[in-house]
Amino acid sequence: MDLFPILQELHQPGGKILLVVLDGVGGLPLEPGGPTELEAAQTPNLDRLAAESALGLLTPVHPGLAPGSGPGHLALFGYDPFRYVVGRGALSALGLGADFREGDVALRGNFATLDAEGKVVDRRAGRPSTEENQRVIAKLKEAIPRIEDVEIHFYTESEHRFLVILRGEGLGDGVTDTDPQKAGLPPLEARPLDEASRKTAHILNLLAERIRAVLRDEPRLNGALFRRASQKPRFPSFQEVYSLRAAAVASYPMYKGLAALVGMEVLPVEGEGDAHEGKLKALRENWDRYEFFYLHFKKTDAKGEDGDFLGKVREIERFDAFLPELLALKPEVLALTGDHSTPAALKAHSWHPVPLLLKAPYLRRDEAGRFTEAEALKGSLGHLRGVELMPLLLAHAGRLLKYGA
Amino acid sequence: MDLFPILQELHQPGGKILLVVLDGVGGLPLEPGGPTELEAAQTPNLDRLAAESALGLLTPVHPGLAPGSGPGHLALFGYDPFRYVVGRGALSALGLGADFREGDVALRGNFATLDAEGKVVDRRAGRPSTEENQRVIAKLKEAIPRIEDVEIHFYTESEHRFLVILRGEGLGDGVTDTDPQKAGLPPLEARPLDEASRKTAHILNLLAERIRAVLRDEPRLNGALFRRASQKPRFPSFQEVYSLRAAAVASYPMYKGLAALVGMEVLPVEGEGDAHEGKLKALRENWDRYEFFYLHFKKTDAKGEDGDFLGKVREIERFDAFLPELLALKPEVLALTGDHSTPAALKAHSWHPVPLLLKAPYLRRDEAGRFTEAEALKGSLGHLRGVELMPLLLAHAGRLLKYGA
Repeated sequence: MDLFPILQELHQPGGKILLVVLDGVGGLPLEPGGPTELEAAQTPNLDRLAAESALGLLTPVHPGLAPGSGPGHLALFGYDPFRYVVGRGALSALGLGADFREGDVALRGNFATLDAEGKVVDRRAGRPSTEENQRVIAKLKEAIPRIEDVEIHFYTESEHRFLVILRGEGLGDGVTDTDPQKAGLPPLEARPLDEASRKTAHILNLLAERIRAVLRDEPRLNGALFRRASQKPRFPSFQEVYSLRAAAVASYPMYKGLAALVGMEVLPVEGEGDAHEGKLKALRENWDRYEFFYLHFKKTDAKGEDGDFLGKVREIERFDAFLPELLALKPEVLALTGDHSTPAALKAHSWHPVPLLLKAPYLRRDEAGRFTEAEALKGSLGHLRGVELMPLLLAHAGRLLKYGA
Repeated sequence: MDLFPILQELHQPGGKILLVVLDGVGGLPLEPGGPTELEAAQTPNLDRLAAESALGLLTPVHPGLAPGSGPGHLALFGYDPFRYVVGRGALSALGLGADFREGDVALRGNFATLDAEGKVVDRRAGRPSTEENQRVIAKLKEAIPRIEDVEIHFYTESEHRFLVILRGEGLGDGVTDTDPQKAGLPPLEARPLDEASRKTAHILNLLAERIRAVLRDEPRLNGALFRRASQKPRFPSFQEVYSLRAAAVASYPMYKGLAALVGMEVLPVEGEGDAHEGKLKALRENWDRYEFFYLHFKKTDAKGEDGDFLGKVREIERFDAFLPELLALKPEVLALTGDHSTPAALKAHSWHPVPLLLKAPYLRRDEAGRFTEAEALKGSLGHLRGVELMPLLLAHAGRLLKYGA
């Protein structure tokens, strides 16, 4: 069900909305019956806020699906992640903060080790260090700035992984992967899947040859396998679908990139890491210029991925200490949630729902006393899906007319 | 997801279902932390019923959407309101209880004030009284009973608003609005959007001319603007999709009209307003003739729309006093809910979920002790969508076979 045409039609002006995403904030106990990261954290400011807010449980994408940052965030932005798909190559480009333009084709690359006959010996080139990757990428940048009329841009990702962006006229992203998926076979030819992607396949095959030539003296990183070609998708913007002037306040490229995909203005943020002060400054200086702010914090997820339970607890407490500054901005509607769970116990994204907190006009009293998974269950908002959040925020901001008579 | 083919296939005979809709029953506290209308009401009978029922929270249409009566009721009847859409003109015709037949085209009209050159001076003709509207409508009825072979039927709605129904052969409803949306411009020509609506546009343009001629001596109500042409939709009936002989017991035209749209028999009800006694009589006299009854009460919504918190509380208490009479009918399945919330605090329909009460065989024990928003959250039915209610009622009535093997 695409709600966008309905939301467009129901638009009316209203209050300011601040959506705060604590990346991967949902957790799990380390031992059965123990506290989650949110439960273990000392959060006096959040507790006070929860008491005067409404809570609910939010399943970001679908029960059982542990979403990546792309689907998780698109859902929170109201974009059905099964309909608004960002290709893997494009997501990598966003995550690296690459200069990735409309019409460009991004591909994920693996360095591989090939033998004298050109057969793959190791699909991951012995898992080189990221530094070695950078050294080889520098060679390729120097040697292969373009092929025919197509610019070639290389980016190190990590270990054996890199990204390549093709820029030129008439490039489609319908090409097959060149990774043969097992050793002992030569890399595959890239084949076009549609007429519009003939040139892409042609350039890609030339590129694979050129890379072999340039890297012929490398002992391990002497070949490349490509997969997941994708163009930058064109999504309707927040302005189009919600009539919102929207800004993103985030420190990491992936989140800036996702926000830019839905037409948010990405505000510059000073400082390193989660940069609490820099984010606050960006919010304050731009507060009057936008009607919607997306504010992202990364470290809760990063600590979860590290399996660092106490580190994640501390990041939650750091956010708690920062919260009064956010409240002082007095958004009409404040929502706080996560794009998915990242339990330290799993060291990975998980499918568990996340708590949602809503401070806004027109709330019902509810029994949830803290911003935790278990308390969220008692909240008056019930159990929602990620894509349902934006209509709810618009409603509480007074931005939606009645639907039907 | 259209469940109708599945429900048709799974049909088996079963018990009698009574669906009671307290219009707009969901509420909000007047002050943060205060009681909602349902919480403030003294409802000994409802409380007793709740103790032996299962409760749940029901989002009538979609989180964030404040549904009108049309989408709210269609959802409760199991008709996905995004799929089964009733045009605005058609809804007005239902709401006015107009003689509105298949093939007719209904349009909403505004009286407007035009200047000597035919430009709109006031799109609402200075917001006339409903009495003045009636006086002018009487003139038009008299002067314009038909145009060419098309009958023209006028109805007063309120203030500057009226309804016109075109009746004749070959009328489509794909015509553009004639409201220019701002003063200083002449009314627009109606244009056909499809071949089937050519005649409608032609008649509508003649009608606008005729109205100007008839009203040329009126100082304010001397023109008309038309919008939202729509035909009466054709929906599958309760009989077809649920194999239910269904009857509606309602006092207000909109609800009778919506029930008729899904093929319910609309029973006559004696008395004024919510007519508790008349409704009870209609139920008693027809109890053996139908398998499903839809019973509607309007005043909870009306008091909410008026912003009359205590008035809404009293209407809830009036229903409570009436409840034992309903229980004495002994339906196998009794469901009690609202089509949306109408908090007195908002004086309007809202997007907040409503409580659902289910008295039926095969219930689980639950902790919800009262028919209130907060208690419903604790109910064993969980959090449902409006369209999910009918399958649940059919199941509890023993009317659905197992799905799949």
